[in-house]
Amino acid sequence: MIVCFYSEYFYQITIMNSKSIQPFVRQIRIVLIGTTHSGNIGAAARAMKTMQQSDLCLVKPKSYPSDEATARASGADDVLENARVFDSLEQALADCTLVFATTARDRHISWPIHDPRESAAIIQTQPEDAKIAIVFGREKSGMTNEEIDLCNRVVMIPANPVYSSLNLGSAVQLLCYEVMMQHHLQKEPKVKDIHPNEQPATFEEMEGFYQHLQDTMIQTGFYDPKYPKMLNRRIKRLFNRAELERTELNILRGFLASIQEKL
Amino acid sequence: MIVCFYSEYFYQITIMNSKSIQPFVRQIRIVLIGTTHSGNIGAAARAMKTMQQSDLCLVKPKSYPSDEATARASGADDVLENARVFDSLEQALADCTLVFATTARDRHISWPIHDPRESAAIIQTQPEDAKIAIVFGREKSGMTNEEIDLCNRVVMIPANPVYSSLNLGSAVQLLCYEVMMQHHLQKEPKVKDIHPNEQPATFEEMEGFYQHLQDTMIQTGFYDPKYPKMLNRRIKRLFNRAELERTELNILRGFLASIQEKL
Repeated sequence: MIVCFYSEYFYQITIMNSKSIQPFVRQIRIVLIGTTHSGNIGAAARAMKTMQQSDLCLVKPKSYPSDEATARASGADDVLENARVFDSLEQALADCTLVFATTARDRHISWPIHDPRESAAIIQTQPEDAKIAIVFGREKSGMTNEEIDLCNRVVMIPANPVYSSLNLGSAVQLLCYEVMMQHHLQKEPKVKDIHPNEQPATFEEMEGFYQHLQDTMIQTGFYDPKYPKMLNRRIKRLFNRAELERTELNILRGFLASIQEKL
Repeated sequence: MIVCFYSEYFYQITIMNSKSIQPFVRQIRIVLIGTTHSGNIGAAARAMKTMQQSDLCLVKPKSYPSDEATARASGADDVLENARVFDSLEQALADCTLVFATTARDRHISWPIHDPRESAAIIQTQPEDAKIAIVFGREKSGMTNEEIDLCNRVVMIPANPVYSSLNLGSAVQLLCYEVMMQHHLQKEPKVKDIHPNEQPATFEEMEGFYQHLQDTMIQTGFYDPKYPKMLNRRIKRLFNRAELERTELNILRGFLASIQEKL
């Protein structure tokens, strides 16, 4: 038995770019069957909320509501409080048109099996008002065959062949993340590497810098114009890859000028 | 303060397809700075091992080793035990050629920013023996500007603009998963998708259909309720996999009705 402060178990990572994230992320229902540890229900709620999901359904949870779940939800109380509790999986899935099972065991009957990314891509193609569910089984025993039978597809997370024991909250996190990524990739213009606030140096400015650098290196005796080729190329490759901003370039040239002054 | 049994906090999800997973997944170093809650160190170790990662470095952890971390590692004890502890981030990154920072705050200095998928793609292009690190800051305050300055790039997880508070273990899980996916997708054949044009039948409609079908089969004498199990399962699998459209379902039910009428 371990004693801990759940409420401090959080870690901040910002949004990619809040301006470019559209309000609508494809909504899915997360269904947890027979969750034994109520802390996991809170962790699932938190994972869902970070990825803009809110439809949490619990089938015969061992305990709900609970202080443990609330503590682990860590600010996702609304998702947790709005969770619906059902006596059967059938009820939780009643209005769904597409249901994914997550499973840990090989089944005798084969199923269409997808990784999380494929699953998210399939979800993205569904009509906007379609109800889509992803079902997670019990922490230890997963889903029964009868429960799997109620689903359309199976999702499996690629994992270590000798250690595939994902935490329930992490599994929910991954699936919701992939749904978010479908949205993110559609809406995002290709992310550019350099923050637009800083003006990048122009080609001409870079050429001026390279000339300045070369002159200085000749002056210092570092650069022998008889064997110029590789050094020049390497220097250009280095700074071109760095995609210098004008202010950075000015700093470098200021430095070069200061060297030249001293010589 | 919450009391819980960490050791039971696990959830099984199998590997996608053990045959298609090659032994080599791009190895990365996970660096955790100043982790306050040792349970999070265990959760990170577990997340890493599920994705075939093992190089865990801890910079000034509040407590390590600890029973709490071991309990949360839940079978990833080897990763936890082999974790290296450093007094400074510089030491942890000494042999690295590419370092990603994870950050929660906007910085004055612009950085190349990537989502986890882009980051994994970049990692995949690195030489096989290159040491690559992803650095995670403190649970509450993240990384300092000085620590960010030691990194080459920044990775941000797309998240809910109003609630981006990922659990540390979940954040480690996502990044390691994306690295695993790079590997997985190289090996896996593409999976085709279902056309969304036609309205799919709901779960409830399908259940109505299955009941109708079963009734009809009993009436025809094809189905013996004494030995129901496999037949029912196979039928459900067939139609669930087919992801029936409503019109198709209506056709089938019309057919069943016509049979019943005749009997």
